[in-house]
Amino acid sequence: MVAPTIDFFYEFASTYSYIAAMRVASLAAAAGVTVRWRPFLLGPIFKAQGWDTSPFNLYPAKGRYMVRDCERLAAELGLTFRLPQPFPQNSLLAARVALTALEQGWGEEFSRRIYLAQFAEGRQINAPEVIGAIVAGLGHDAAAALAQAQSDDIKAKLHATTAEAQRLEIFGAPSFMAGGELYWGNDRLEQALGAAKR
Amino acid sequence: MVAPTIDFFYEFASTYSYIAAMRVASLAAAAGVTVRWRPFLLGPIFKAQGWDTSPFNLYPAKGRYMVRDCERLAAELGLTFRLPQPFPQNSLLAARVALTALEQGWGEEFSRRIYLAQFAEGRQINAPEVIGAIVAGLGHDAAAALAQAQSDDIKAKLHATTAEAQRLEIFGAPSFMAGGELYWGNDRLEQALGAAKR
Repeated sequence: MVAPTIDFFYEFASTYSYIAAMRVASLAAAAGVTVRWRPFLLGPIFKAQGWDTSPFNLYPAKGRYMVRDCERLAAELGLTFRLPQPFPQNSLLAARVALTALEQGWGEEFSRRIYLAQFAEGRQINAPEVIGAIVAGLGHDAAAALAQAQSDDIKAKLHATTAEAQRLEIFGAPSFMAGGELYWGNDRLEQALGAAKR
Repeated sequence: MVAPTIDFFYEFASTYSYIAAMRVASLAAAAGVTVRWRPFLLGPIFKAQGWDTSPFNLYPAKGRYMVRDCERLAAELGLTFRLPQPFPQNSLLAARVALTALEQGWGEEFSRRIYLAQFAEGRQINAPEVIGAIVAGLGHDAAAALAQAQSDDIKAKLHATTAEAQRLEIFGAPSFMAGGELYWGNDRLEQALGAAKR
């Protein structure tokens, strides 16, 4: 029998993806559900909706609320939240390194470290030295990981995941696929885990 | 000692306000929290954001997802959900009658009936005969309620509530005010009840 599985589509620049990334592993383990970590890029999807930046920038009241909401959600997890400057960060390099790391078995912890660096510490996640320090801190070769992240193979895989997200009509992050259905947002993680087990 | 209280800002045309309206009374009673029902109009707030219709119409993928999400949320409550045609409905008359009814002590049940008529039965909530039938079904004088709903006093009160929502930076519905903070969305009802008690 195949273990129940959810696909976790996450975007490194996404504030609510941070909250979900810090929750998903423990909740899924408790539920007996396997998580497929699927980093993707929201930029092309937002562009297709006519947005050239985050909706939290386009709608300032919504953006101010989001910061307070994320502070409260992070506090419930014993974490801090701060909005990085600039927001949103350019997440391309982090996503490529994450795909590299996921193939080598250390991508989940790498992803959490990128989120903490960005949303708890206010660091620049498009900086190779920030990413490299996280890779090295996890005991891996930073130069090798950064080089492999720029390979045609990894670039193609990131394009493919983003294209798959578009085909699935994903319009925001985080999103979960479970039991053939889409669940959008950190708030739907529990429901997606339940659906995976049915 | 004053009982803990939340303000429940709801818009009759709002799909997630339907879900929240069907949950709020029982959850608040269990938590020992008093609910102030505050019908308001989202239209002026959406216009100020540059929208001339619901974001679920402006962003079709988000709209399709919302329908499925509300079907699932309604099913968890033993309810059905269907998107009314047209969507969104004109909610002005329903909001005015609700304010009238709330002053007379039967506004909560009236509000739930309007939501069920619209989102479970697909009826037109801007039709005086639909609203009047609900008023009569609750044992009140439909003609009197509809007349009072068009009074200057009720019109001014609805304007005032909508203006207050704008001052509070409310940008969507449902929204809750608890402990001086804003909580947006049906998903935040539990958190708002917890905040009211602190």
